[in-house]
Amino acid sequence: MGITSHDVARLAGVSQPTVSRSLRGDPRVAPGTRERVLAAAAALNYIPSEAGRSLSTRATKRIGVVVTDLTNPFYPQLVAPLHDELERLGYRMMLFTERSEDAVAMERLLDQSIDGVVLTTATTDSMLSGELIRRGLPFVFLNREDDSERADAAVADNVAGARLVAAELARLGHRRIAGIFGAANTSTGRDRELGFRLALAEAGVGLPETHVRRGPFEFATGRDALAQLLAAGPAPTAVFCGNDVIAIGVLDAALKTGLRVPADLTVIGFDDIPMASWASFELTTVGHDMHAMARTAARLLVRRIAGVDTAGTERVVFPAEMILRHTHGPAPRP
Amino acid sequence: MGITSHDVARLAGVSQPTVSRSLRGDPRVAPGTRERVLAAAAALNYIPSEAGRSLSTRATKRIGVVVTDLTNPFYPQLVAPLHDELERLGYRMMLFTERSEDAVAMERLLDQSIDGVVLTTATTDSMLSGELIRRGLPFVFLNREDDSERADAAVADNVAGARLVAAELARLGHRRIAGIFGAANTSTGRDRELGFRLALAEAGVGLPETHVRRGPFEFATGRDALAQLLAAGPAPTAVFCGNDVIAIGVLDAALKTGLRVPADLTVIGFDDIPMASWASFELTTVGHDMHAMARTAARLLVRRIAGVDTAGTERVVFPAEMILRHTHGPAPRP
Repeated sequence: MGITSHDVARLAGVSQPTVSRSLRGDPRVAPGTRERVLAAAAALNYIPSEAGRSLSTRATKRIGVVVTDLTNPFYPQLVAPLHDELERLGYRMMLFTERSEDAVAMERLLDQSIDGVVLTTATTDSMLSGELIRRGLPFVFLNREDDSERADAAVADNVAGARLVAAELARLGHRRIAGIFGAANTSTGRDRELGFRLALAEAGVGLPETHVRRGPFEFATGRDALAQLLAAGPAPTAVFCGNDVIAIGVLDAALKTGLRVPADLTVIGFDDIPMASWASFELTTVGHDMHAMARTAARLLVRRIAGVDTAGTERVVFPAEMILRHTHGPAPRP
Repeated sequence: MGITSHDVARLAGVSQPTVSRSLRGDPRVAPGTRERVLAAAAALNYIPSEAGRSLSTRATKRIGVVVTDLTNPFYPQLVAPLHDELERLGYRMMLFTERSEDAVAMERLLDQSIDGVVLTTATTDSMLSGELIRRGLPFVFLNREDDSERADAAVADNVAGARLVAAELARLGHRRIAGIFGAANTSTGRDRELGFRLALAEAGVGLPETHVRRGPFEFATGRDALAQLLAAGPAPTAVFCGNDVIAIGVLDAALKTGLRVPADLTVIGFDDIPMASWASFELTTVGHDMHAMARTAARLLVRRIAGVDTAGTERVVFPAEMILRHTHGPAPRP
C-alpha cells in the first residue's frame, strides 16, 4: 500500500521508531524532531497504519459493536447514537454484523485488536460473554443482556413496560388476550412476557397457552402469528407484541383479513421506533429512551476500559412509558 | 491482551517467526514443527492478532463497506447479501458507518489495513474515489456511483426504471404530475430524475419546476414535500418519488390530509424494498435485484483485488421493472 513509516523516517532523517513516537505524540521526542517528522509525513501523504500502531501501543481506541439483526429497524436507532458517543469519547466504532453470536464472531472480535465490545443482540444462552471474560476483553450489554450479570448493562425496564400494557388492556375490558412475544432466548423477549403475565394475573385475566406465540423480532412473526391465532379459534380482542416490528406485522395481517384496528382488535407494541408514529400505523406502544440507552452503554464501556474501579457491575435501567396512539380501544361487546 | 506468539514460541520450543509461519500455513515449516506449534497455540488458547498478521503478509482478507445512511431501510438489504458473498469468497466485511463520505472516513479506511472497499452511498461530488485511486486501494461502487468511471460498478438501470414510471403515468392520463426526487448529488437521484423527465417529455407531459422537490432519501422528505406541494397550489394527481422510503412519507402525508390513494393521488416509488409490499402500503414501485447487485459488487471487487487484468472498468447494470401494486390509478376527472 505504498508509503511506509520507513519512507517518512528516511525523508525526515530519523529512525523509524522516532517516526512512530512522533506521530503518536510521545513527549520524549524533541519538538523540532517531531515537526520534521510531521512535515515529512505530510509531504509523503503518509497515514500511519492502525496495525502498526496497535502493535506498538496495544490500545487501539477501537470498539467492536456486535449486531446480529441489522434488518430490524430497531438497531440502526441504537447504532447512530453509539457511533456519535464513542466518537466523542475518542473511540472508533467497528460494526460486526453476524448472522448469530457464534464462535466465528468471537474469533473475529479478538482478531481485530479492539479495546472493548458492545453486545446489542445478546441471547440469554450465548457463550460470547463467557468467552469475553475469559479473554479479559471489556464489554457491555446494550438493550439485551444474558443471565450472567458479569458485565455492565444499559437496558429498558422491560418488565415494568409490559406491566403497563397488561394494566391498560385490563382497564379497557379485554378478556380474550393474545401475546406474540419475541424470541424466548432473549432478555427482552423473556422480560416483556414475564411482566405482561404477572400484571395480567394480578388483574385476574388469563393468558392461555393457545393464545401465546413466540418468534424472532420480525415483521413475519407478527403477520404469521395473527393468521394462526385467527385460524385456531375465537379471535382475541387484543394482542400484545414483543416489539413494534412484530406489531406492525400484526397490523398487516389484520388489514388483509378485514379486521378493524382498534374496533375489532387492539394491537400494542414495544420500543416506539420512528415507524410506530407513521400515519399508516399510529401504533400504541411502550416507549423508552433508546438514544440515552446507547450513549450510556458507550460511557459504561469506556469507563471499564479505562480501568476505573467499580464495585461489581453496573446495570442502568431506563424507564418505560405507554405511548397511547390509535391502535388500542375498549374490548368490543361480544 | 494476554497470550502472545512469543508465549506460543516458548512452549513449542521454536522461534516466534516460526510460530507466525506455522499459523499461516507456510509450506517451509516442517509438518512436525507445525503440529507442535498448533498444539501449543491450542493449549494456550492463542488466537493470532490480525494486526500482527497483516504486518507480516500485507493481505488482510478484509473488505471495508462504507454506508453513510444506515437508518434507510434500503441499506440493510444490501449489507446482508454483501456479508454472505464476501464470506463465501474468503473475505471479512467491516462496516464503516459514517455521517458522510468525508476525509475522516478516508483516513479510517486506510488505517484499518483493508484490501478493498465497497462504496454504497457515494455522492457524485465525493473526493473519496479519487483518494482511493491515489492510494492504490481497490474499490467498487454499489448502487450509487460517482462520475469518474474509474472503478467497477454494480448499479440498477435507474434511467430505464424511471422511464417506465413516466410512461405508466402518461398512459393513465395524468397531466398534473409532481416529482419528489432524491439528493441531486447522487447518481440514483440524478438518473431517476433524468429518465423520468426524458420519458415525460417524449409523452408530451410537462413537469414544471413548481412541482419538483429534491431531498435526502428519507421518509421526512416525502412527508414534508407533499405538504408543501398541496399548500403551493392545485394538487398533483400523481407523484413519482426517488425511492420507496420517500414514497411511504408521501403516503403518510396523504393519509393525514385525507387524500385517497390512488383515487385522488397516484404514488409511485423506486427500489421495491420489503416494506413496499406490506398491506399498509401496497406501494407501486420499480423493482431491481438488490441481492444480485450486492453479490456482483463483491465479486467485482475481489477480482480487482486479485489483480485480474481487465481492459478498463466494468459496469454491471441490473434491469428495472414496474411492480404494479395498489397506489396507482387513472387520473381523477377534473
